[in-house]
Parts: sequence; structure tokens; C-alpha cells
Amino acid sequence: MKRTSLAGMDCSIAHALDQVGEWWSLLIIRDCFFGFTRFEQFQRRLGIARNVLSDRLESLTGSGILERTEYQARPRRFEYRLTAKGRDLFPVLMTLRQWGDRWATEGAPPITVEHRGCGQIGDALLHCSECGERLSDRDVKIHGNYLVRPAPRADR
Amino acid sequence: MKRTSLAGMDCSIAHALDQVGEWWSLLIIRDCFFGFTRFEQFQRRLGIARNVLSDRLESLTGSGILERTEYQARPRRFEYRLTAKGRDLFPVLMTLRQWGDRWATEGAPPITVEHRGCGQIGDALLHCSECGERLSDRDVKIHGNYLVRPAPRADR
Repeated sequence: MKRTSLAGMDCSIAHALDQVGEWWSLLIIRDCFFGFTRFEQFQRRLGIARNVLSDRLESLTGSGILERTEYQARPRRFEYRLTAKGRDLFPVLMTLRQWGDRWATEGAPPITVEHRGCGQIGDALLHCSECGERLSDRDVKIHGNYLVRPAPRADR
Repeated sequence: MKRTSLAGMDCSIAHALDQVGEWWSLLIIRDCFFGFTRFEQFQRRLGIARNVLSDRLESLTGSGILERTEYQARPRRFEYRLTAKGRDLFPVLMTLRQWGDRWATEGAPPITVEHRGCGQIGDALLHCSECGERLSDRDVKIHGNYLVRPAPRADR
């Protein structure tokens, strides 16, 4: 089923979801951050139908999040790597992972992330780009038009 | 269509997506951060069918992301507010918004976010919780089992 496009909403979250809001897409991007690059790897790891995976890879390549390069000529084989646009999703995946660790996973977190700079295992926290202080939802004031237009009507 | 559950994957991102990976859900949560609380407000803003909105609100309430309280007895009317678990999605929405501003939106960002602490409009950046330094995808090393099991086979 084709979903309603959220591109008509004047909202960057909606626009982002329009490109990466399909969960297989985010899991493919996750696997790219883990260093996987090939169709067969994604297919095995995600356990999704090949045609669905093809669609997602095409869509992610089309929107400039992945780039596809040929690594073998006969038979032709391709690998997929994150572009700068794709790599810039790192904060989204890190914050989703941490939320999942805290609220949606029982027991120990399946992975931990070490900061190479200091050698410690920790979390990624939001800080203000201007003053450097920690930033929570209580600390911000929203400006501008958040009276977004509704998306075209959809029945799901 | 009911989607495959991602709960079987040993991955916190998958578990998080299992609870909030449906895009209407994230847009409802966005609207809660904007201060909206009522069914009619969400419905008007999102332009989705009432039954779909009911389903999503029920699911978000069921998973403890929103809490529902009665604000009027006759006729009964409810409002929905973020719980601590819901508010903890703030970093996910902030990072998604920023990515959308940068890569998926043309022209000026529809909203800007002021840090009340310093009074400046800026971005929310990831910093290491242990040493306080900026954190990018180049700076981290992943430990643990990221050889996640595949989800049950799905055809979408």
C-alpha cells in the first residue's frame, strides 16, 4: 500500500518521515552504520522479502541517502553506502536507540557505544549549539508556524 | 494492514520503531510537544480519519507514551498528554526535525527553536555524556551483538 505523502505538510519532521519514516528504511540505514553494504547482507539481517528490500534500496538511493556503486562487473553486483545526507541521520538513530534501550527493551541493551575520544561507554545527549548547555524539552521555546496544514486525507 | 512486529529483533532501534515507528504516531507526539492535547485538535491538524486517529491514540496510551485524562464528564471528553516515556522522545523529534530542515525541506525551516537558557536560536547537537565532547558517527565504536536476528518474514 502506498502511503499518503507527508510532503504537503509545512513541517520538517513530516518531510523527514516522508523520506525515512518507513521502518525498514531506518533499519537499512542502521545496518549501513554497522558497516554492511550488500543486498544479501541486508536481506539476511532484516528477513524481508527481496522485492521489498529492492524497493527500499531504490527509494533510499533515489532520495540521496544511499549511493550505489558497482563492485563486480560479471555478474553485476552493487554495494550501498551512506552519503553525507545519510550519515547525517546518525543523531536520529542514536537517540532512537537510547530511547529504545530505556523504554522499549527489557534487560541489558544489546549494544553499547564507546566514544573513541574519551574511551568511555556513554550516551549521546543533546546540547545547545550556541551555549553548549544540556537541552531538554523544558528548555526550549518554539517560534514560527507550527500550525501545519493537514496532509491529504488518508484512511490509515 | 497490520505490520510485522519488530519486537523479535534484538535491537533497541527496532523495539523503538515497534512503538513509535508509525509516522502518524510521531506526528501526534510532535503535536503534544507543541501543546495540543485533544482529539479534535489532532484530527484537524493531521487530517487523518477519525478511526485511524483513535487507533493511534489508543496504541500510544497503551504503550505508556501518552496518558489520557477526562476533562469533561458530560459528554465525556478526554485529553492526552505525554508521560515521562513520551517526553523522552524529545531528542528523537529534535534530531529528525533538524535533519528534515537540512535535507528534506526547501527554503526556510518552518520553525526555529530557542534555548531559553541562553536566549539564542540554535541546533541541538549530540555530545558524549561522559566527557562532554561533540559526538559524530566517526567518533564511536560499537560493542555488543549487532548481528540481530531477522524479524519474522513480512511482505512489505
